[in-house]
Amino acid sequence: MSVEVVVVGIGSGLAAHLTGEAVAALNRVDVFLVADKGSAAADLRTLRTELCVAVITHPGYRVVEVADPERGPDAERDRAAYEAGVRDWHHARAERYADVIRRELPEGGTVGFLVWGDPAFYDSTLRIVESVAEQGVELTTTVVPGISSVQLLAARHRLVLNGVGGSIHVTTGRRLVADYHPGLGDVVVMLDGALTCARLLEAHPDLHIFWGAQLGLPDEALVAGPLAEVLDEIRATRLRLRAHRGWVMDTYLLRGPSLSLPLP
Amino acid sequence: MSVEVVVVGIGSGLAAHLTGEAVAALNRVDVFLVADKGSAAADLRTLRTELCVAVITHPGYRVVEVADPERGPDAERDRAAYEAGVRDWHHARAERYADVIRRELPEGGTVGFLVWGDPAFYDSTLRIVESVAEQGVELTTTVVPGISSVQLLAARHRLVLNGVGGSIHVTTGRRLVADYHPGLGDVVVMLDGALTCARLLEAHPDLHIFWGAQLGLPDEALVAGPLAEVLDEIRATRLRLRAHRGWVMDTYLLRGPSLSLPLP
Repeated sequence: MSVEVVVVGIGSGLAAHLTGEAVAALNRVDVFLVADKGSAAADLRTLRTELCVAVITHPGYRVVEVADPERGPDAERDRAAYEAGVRDWHHARAERYADVIRRELPEGGTVGFLVWGDPAFYDSTLRIVESVAEQGVELTTTVVPGISSVQLLAARHRLVLNGVGGSIHVTTGRRLVADYHPGLGDVVVMLDGALTCARLLEAHPDLHIFWGAQLGLPDEALVAGPLAEVLDEIRATRLRLRAHRGWVMDTYLLRGPSLSLPLP
Repeated sequence: MSVEVVVVGIGSGLAAHLTGEAVAALNRVDVFLVADKGSAAADLRTLRTELCVAVITHPGYRVVEVADPERGPDAERDRAAYEAGVRDWHHARAERYADVIRRELPEGGTVGFLVWGDPAFYDSTLRIVESVAEQGVELTTTVVPGISSVQLLAARHRLVLNGVGGSIHVTTGRRLVADYHPGLGDVVVMLDGALTCARLLEAHPDLHIFWGAQLGLPDEALVAGPLAEVLDEIRATRLRLRAHRGWVMDTYLLRGPSLSLPLP
């Protein structure tokens, strides 16, 4: 059997944010594999189903849910044992996907994964596909980029992400406080439910923030200003959004006071 | 008069890389303003014209070229004088755009700027529009994200740009050598016609490179491997592409030896 895996970036999930290439790729798929979890799952599933209905022009596709294997307890303090546990879990997950592909497409065909935003940014789908290939499933992979939340954030605030001649650093809430220094240039923070940036204020009171949540959805929210002044507004907005939808997805840009004048 | 400016990311210029939102925005435009220069200009103009013809469904739009003002000599060594010169030049350029908008749309309407890739990454269009607004043109701005070359690079190499739990640093050839250290995580380099990364090899012999040029065009080229081993191939490929098309646009990812094991 010969399997093509297409990993499609679907941006915010809004049909208008799909590229033509993404629409064409979705229309090639026989079986979509999905593995949502967490409290956002049901709502995201609805958004994704609506998207498929909106852009796929034939009825002959299937959606198959692949449940993640149970994780062992994380109690072990021993790093080697912990890492072995993680590897076992990744292996078990890849086996499950390989089994589903063999069962659903015994004659081969096209498997689709829908990825929020862009598969290249903070998403594990491509790593899963690599593991599935290591399970002996013969496959080719096509990746279709999508509009990431970082790009929507910049578009909504009408920002160029880099200062003139400057750098852009993209990092996570988990790393922000340890890694931050003004020399990084403009810093985009992903996956930071705790607004870790608040802990930078003492050392960097001049930071500006450009924040956005639920980007591309009807409850999209934006806040911008001096971090010290708008932090409370952002916190309140997050609470309101979560109360409304059950989850909140946000991202933000931190920008220090401009150090350089415009270059030619 | 009331003017809407739409700044549209057109990705590689291939119609398939446009989002539905971008296609709709292009179809709203009365006058496109363009300011290409340099040796790539004629070829890029052709690509852009073909794109407009492919996706705009009415004949009622105009394309107006706005020549950049002459730059004064850069000979002054005095930094203050140099910066004043740059400011004057920006001001003159903004005045020119403002004049063209007033002349072309005396009753108001929609002005379009086409931006290769995404307007948020290493592009000056949004800064020009800001300057035009400062000239007293009343305008609203809408930004439509596009697929950047960084995303196409990642898609073609089937890469997740960040290491597991890691950061992504996006910088320019001009800054790379001074700024590089392995703690930055994966490093994407833009605007580096000189392959500055070669100068990192002595201190960082283990770097891997994932390189791509003319991404999305028929002469697209990809090279990946240990930097020390593939640098000559990349140089040769650049020469070949430049001979063919008259210009080469490339970008690349540098990745150090993996420092961290997979996280949960």
